[in-house]
Amino acid sequence: MTKRKVCVVVTARASYSRIKSVLCAIQQHKALELQLVVGASAVLDRYGNVISCMERDGFHIVAKVYMVLEGENLTTMAKTTGIGVLELATVFDNIKPDVVITVADRYETIATAIAASFMNIPVAHVQGGEVTGSIDEKVRHAVTKLSDIHFVATQKAADRVKLMGEEPSRVFVTGCPSIDLAAEVAKQAMLNFDPFEKYGGVGETMDISGGYVVVMQHPVTTEYEQAFTQVAEVLKAVVALDLPALWFWPNVDAGSDGVSKCIRIFREQNSSCKIHFFRHMMSEDFLRLLCNCRCLIGNSSVGIRETSFLGVPVVNVGNRQSGRERGQNVIDVGYNRSEIVDAVRKQLGHGPWPCNPLYGDGNAGTRIASLLSDVTLTIEKKFVN
Amino acid sequence: MTKRKVCVVVTARASYSRIKSVLCAIQQHKALELQLVVGASAVLDRYGNVISCMERDGFHIVAKVYMVLEGENLTTMAKTTGIGVLELATVFDNIKPDVVITVADRYETIATAIAASFMNIPVAHVQGGEVTGSIDEKVRHAVTKLSDIHFVATQKAADRVKLMGEEPSRVFVTGCPSIDLAAEVAKQAMLNFDPFEKYGGVGETMDISGGYVVVMQHPVTTEYEQAFTQVAEVLKAVVALDLPALWFWPNVDAGSDGVSKCIRIFREQNSSCKIHFFRHMMSEDFLRLLCNCRCLIGNSSVGIRETSFLGVPVVNVGNRQSGRERGQNVIDVGYNRSEIVDAVRKQLGHGPWPCNPLYGDGNAGTRIASLLSDVTLTIEKKFVN
Amino acid sequence: MTKRKVCVVVTARASYSRIKSVLCAIQQHKALELQLVVGASAVLDRYGNVISCMERDGFHIVAKVYMVLEGENLTTMAKTTGIGVLELATVFDNIKPDVVITVADRYETIATAIAASFMNIPVAHVQGGEVTGSIDEKVRHAVTKLSDIHFVATQKAADRVKLMGEEPSRVFVTGCPSIDLAAEVAKQAMLNFDPFEKYGGVGETMDISGGYVVVMQHPVTTEYEQAFTQVAEVLKAVVALDLPALWFWPNVDAGSDGVSKCIRIFREQNSSCKIHFFRHMMSEDFLRLLCNCRCLIGNSSVGIRETSFLGVPVVNVGNRQSGRERGQNVIDVGYNRSEIVDAVRKQLGHGPWPCNPLYGDGNAGTRIASLLSDVTLTIEKKFVN
Amino acid sequence: MTKRKVCVVVTARASYSRIKSVLCAIQQHKALELQLVVGASAVLDRYGNVISCMERDGFHIVAKVYMVLEGENLTTMAKTTGIGVLELATVFDNIKPDVVITVADRYETIATAIAASFMNIPVAHVQGGEVTGSIDEKVRHAVTKLSDIHFVATQKAADRVKLMGEEPSRVFVTGCPSIDLAAEVAKQAMLNFDPFEKYGGVGETMDISGGYVVVMQHPVTTEYEQAFTQVAEVLKAVVALDLPALWFWPNVDAGSDGVSKCIRIFREQNSSCKIHFFRHMMSEDFLRLLCNCRCLIGNSSVGIRETSFLGVPVVNVGNRQSGRERGQNVIDVGYNRSEIVDAVRKQLGHGPWPCNPLYGDGNAGTRIASLLSDVTLTIEKKFVN
Repeated sequence: MTKRKVCVVVTARASYSRIKSVLCAIQQHKALELQLVVGASAVLDRYGNVISCMERDGFHIVAKVYMVLEGENLTTMAKTTGIGVLELATVFDNIKPDVVITVADRYETIATAIAASFMNIPVAHVQGGEVTGSIDEKVRHAVTKLSDIHFVATQKAADRVKLMGEEPSRVFVTGCPSIDLAAEVAKQAMLNFDPFEKYGGVGETMDISGGYVVVMQHPVTTEYEQAFTQVAEVLKAVVALDLPALWFWPNVDAGSDGVSKCIRIFREQNSSCKIHFFRHMMSEDFLRLLCNCRCLIGNSSVGIRETSFLGVPVVNVGNRQSGRERGQNVIDVGYNRSEIVDAVRKQLGHGPWPCNPLYGDGNAGTRIASLLSDVTLTIEKKFVN
Repeated sequence: MTKRKVCVVVTARASYSRIKSVLCAIQQHKALELQLVVGASAVLDRYGNVISCMERDGFHIVAKVYMVLEGENLTTMAKTTGIGVLELATVFDNIKPDVVITVADRYETIATAIAASFMNIPVAHVQGGEVTGSIDEKVRHAVTKLSDIHFVATQKAADRVKLMGEEPSRVFVTGCPSIDLAAEVAKQAMLNFDPFEKYGGVGETMDISGGYVVVMQHPVTTEYEQAFTQVAEVLKAVVALDLPALWFWPNVDAGSDGVSKCIRIFREQNSSCKIHFFRHMMSEDFLRLLCNCRCLIGNSSVGIRETSFLGVPVVNVGNRQSGRERGQNVIDVGYNRSEIVDAVRKQLGHGPWPCNPLYGDGNAGTRIASLLSDVTLTIEKKFVN
Repeated sequence: MTKRKVCVVVTARASYSRIKSVLCAIQQHKALELQLVVGASAVLDRYGNVISCMERDGFHIVAKVYMVLEGENLTTMAKTTGIGVLELATVFDNIKPDVVITVADRYETIATAIAASFMNIPVAHVQGGEVTGSIDEKVRHAVTKLSDIHFVATQKAADRVKLMGEEPSRVFVTGCPSIDLAAEVAKQAMLNFDPFEKYGGVGETMDISGGYVVVMQHPVTTEYEQAFTQVAEVLKAVVALDLPALWFWPNVDAGSDGVSKCIRIFREQNSSCKIHFFRHMMSEDFLRLLCNCRCLIGNSSVGIRETSFLGVPVVNVGNRQSGRERGQNVIDVGYNRSEIVDAVRKQLGHGPWPCNPLYGDGNAGTRIASLLSDVTLTIEKKFVN
Repeated sequence: MTKRKVCVVVTARASYSRIKSVLCAIQQHKALELQLVVGASAVLDRYGNVISCMERDGFHIVAKVYMVLEGENLTTMAKTTGIGVLELATVFDNIKPDVVITVADRYETIATAIAASFMNIPVAHVQGGEVTGSIDEKVRHAVTKLSDIHFVATQKAADRVKLMGEEPSRVFVTGCPSIDLAAEVAKQAMLNFDPFEKYGGVGETMDISGGYVVVMQHPVTTEYEQAFTQVAEVLKAVVALDLPALWFWPNVDAGSDGVSKCIRIFREQNSSCKIHFFRHMMSEDFLRLLCNCRCLIGNSSVGIRETSFLGVPVVNVGNRQSGRERGQNVIDVGYNRSEIVDAVRKQLGHGPWPCNPLYGDGNAGTRIASLLSDVTLTIEKKFVN
């Protein structure tokens, strides 16, 4: 029996954690062959060496795709996607996959969906049907309409995908694979490493044994110009809290320059505050840090998704995640430092929330691999209504 | 008052006819400034010099975009689209439109939608919400999800666009602008030129005063390999009919090579049959030819759309238009020569059908221009359900 | 012993004939492994299916590179080269050659030299040091300066390469491999096929047993605008000669559109003249046609190079080959029909010329393969003077 | 009288200083119109905001070209150049220059030469004919062979350009425009700013009134793998010297990642050494720092070129500048810390050298502008020997 060749394209550090359990399950499935393609910021040292993580985790990479055009503005974001289509078409032509998996909704993931669908290769989309703000909202649903198979996280997401005219029998509620990793980590959640020692970063080394918060603040591409002032507001809130804060550097979207600049200026002016900046961590370590933090602040999807399962208190800032289903563990606020501070204090008072399997029960990976092994692969689609 | 800059991107000869009345209406509207960008096959002599048509029609072209990568296969189709995104991003960066219009569903039109939406420019889509087969089906709906404003042809199309989560107040049933041109021509439908004399083409010059059929057969990108055999079946049917046939060369999709090759071989083997091949015509002339033909055979969207208004009898072959709303003037058949012949004979027996305003009443252009002048332009979208 | 991986990049039908004996010799050499990459017009059906020739000849193709951006103007010529660099870099990254061979001086060959040299792969250049007109002149010498090893055709070419500062010990007079094929064909030169039957083409089938001329007229990229009028002059001269003429379609440079258009118009106006147009032929057949023709007319390098060995009378038109060393068999004329006619008549009167080994003795292929197997491969260069 | 449109393409911060006096002279010349195009690292904030410098200096930028593909390896270097050709072709097509100036020999400058020459636009090259190591050596001479006019710095450079077959009447010894700026600064050389205050940077603020050294160490692309160890050796030498050192961050070539990484690791391990790292400075400030330093260490061309005029003692490390003409002010050493230390000590003992006009007398800019206004512009070239 020839194995089905399943090509997974990973274009960002965060996407790797999100899809890792699927990669494992594909690799272990005897009817599937994994073709792992890594591209965009995931091949760049600047954004953390994901490649070496993958190799350490036992994955073989069949192609590296350099596609990020420097500039970090909206024009280069578009051009990066164009280069992605050019390059991924070559990759698919070389490795001839039976099905291509594209993950979530980062802007450059539409390059994967275009290259594959235009080349008559069935496309499977993970994490469609959700609702957020930003360009991600447009990209996610456009990728749904270019895709042939849908592995969604929640029933509501499934409903939306079907509303959009997708054939119901091709939409599968598998849970989100990012929860698989969180579930794994949650089994042994104790903080078993020193983040300062293991990951360096910049800023003072602090005693975090008395509790700490975690911050992840990404630029919002449709609010490009505001990136600088938005992060400034979050910074001021965190300083006002006066708790040790572990801050994670933003991803490579348009506006990340504004965020970086703001952080750089802040650091020069506030050399001895209680914030330590990290570039990136192994996902397991990051999740363990989350499990043990008193509150997550920012606008990352982690604050909606993994934290619901882990019961971590979250203060979600701004519109980036607006519309996404969320658990009771999340308080939403605007870009306003006192609002942020008040909400965090409320969360500190409450403490951990119970586990909520809203986004999955921890078995998405094996479910997806199993479906990939026996679903009919076709590129013919018709709007169902 | 500064005028709104409306950029329209035209990427194929057929799209020009389809959008021409909108271009006119924008140009004449005192609150709008037209920025006409021409790209893909529309700038290539091989596919008919659309540029000179446009200039003759009084339009100024602000940018020409060379983006077609030669090869005419699925890989180059994807790469062409990637190059399109790269190039259009530069164009938009230079001309800074307030809104970008993308037309219909040809594969490369997604490049327009991506470049504009990624650059935070509102996108207006003409002819969304329809249902067909082929890669067009995926592209059309993906473009809908990347777009902010929708000018659709029919109420059913509007319903589908809304089902897909688009904000109802942003969906406008304007009718299809291609009908505007058809309506114009229908006012004086008499054949007032000699197609052989005016357009050359290859094959014998025939007496068409006793009636003729028109054939337009495009390759179907998702049935790439079958292009050759499909066109062969149509050719044999047309020969069997033994009526003068005016055959139009296919567009530049993957598979067009197969179609061309089949036609070339056929011509070498059948030097004296009653088929004359044309590359392209001015739209008005083409529509006038249609008005006067006894039957249109093939799989072009013209056979569904303009013909419903004009009442031309149509035999629609294969799946390319499957799912599209159609009038009584259309008989659907498979790629089978005797099925085709029988259906054509039936249509010849019936003769012209009454005008059916299914796809528009002839005023789409002015309606769209008027809406463009006062609709709120925004890039923020949220799935509505 | 690991074999040296020799990557040869072929980007045009003509380049294949030119390098074929080298490909054979590399394939047969026990210390070398051939990596054949085919790109640009050589992968396009429109320019003759070189791929299937290569496969029939027993070569395995490791990568096909689609890089021709349609438009056939100077801007797309530049962009084609840019795409070539993008694509070839991926290819070289995948196949990791020990040395890359680039052939002659077509504009897109500089893409090969740039991709390889920038990636620290030694570059060997075949046919450097010659002098002509057109953009080829700039490209050829620029490629020399990007290359590390030089296999040149003549002693004068070697002298020029050294003058340009190349290390003398890296410059080898091997003869031109295109002569190898000519020498092979010359051993059995009798016309053993019917060109009309075997290759079709357009125009009347003629009796060529009483003698015929061959025409090859390429557009000159630096005289882009004149392409149309230049070919018109040659056409009129050929008509005036009133001899059966076998005319070969031009290659895909800027201006080829002008040439094609001129020929098309001519054909429509002169349906029954003694010219038959061919798209392309297998090299051996083409050379055999040449051996037996009474005169070659045009501006192809074949008229300078292979004909000197074969002793074919040549009338070379215009500047395209100006500066190139030539044998006594060539008469140079301008784009003037009466000049052309007079010169051809003079050649017809003279008849065949003796063999002149100016461009090689027929053993270039084995010489080059042998050198490739033991030359030191290095990327360090310094101007020698 | 219509002005000649002179397009200058600047692709790096260093190139701007190098060409600035030419830009001024063109702008002031009444027969010339300046079209300033900025691309590659010169549009990236990461490498210092050259754009704002240019605007402050009164130059209008007609186009910004994003072309740097992230990755900082040899493959992305090649691809960056490919993208450069694609993008610059569009720019030239839009602005239609009469002549394009390309500066010096950075790898991506060949994109300018290719796009312009392929589009039949005359190319003028500044700083051809010099000899160095690295990929620059290949690029520089290849650009010479693609260019039509040559403005060289020295007589020896002119001789080499002519040896390469360039028409002698098209080769002009103008001196290097980078010396113009140095000459200007030398008139008032006193250090009139505090570098730490004005430019920030990282590392300790030091008292430099007792003397300091300047370090500029670029990666060598043909010694890609060694970048890390090479810079390590220089770092250790500088530490051993125990003098305040102002270190400038490397440019964006392949290997710059290795250099950056080495510096980063060093900084983490040596938090209190006497090295301060700067990203970039305004050229005048940088030159003023140079004028007042006790020794320049590294492998920048500044250490050969501007310093000869300024009389700054230089220790030039490694092969990057090998072959370039130099004054007595330069001591060459290998990548060996004790060699470096010894040579610097020797220079400290010697002190400033006399001014040597080897690379120019300070009037190159006006000379070049004047020549541009009356030289015949042609694209026809022929090897002269």
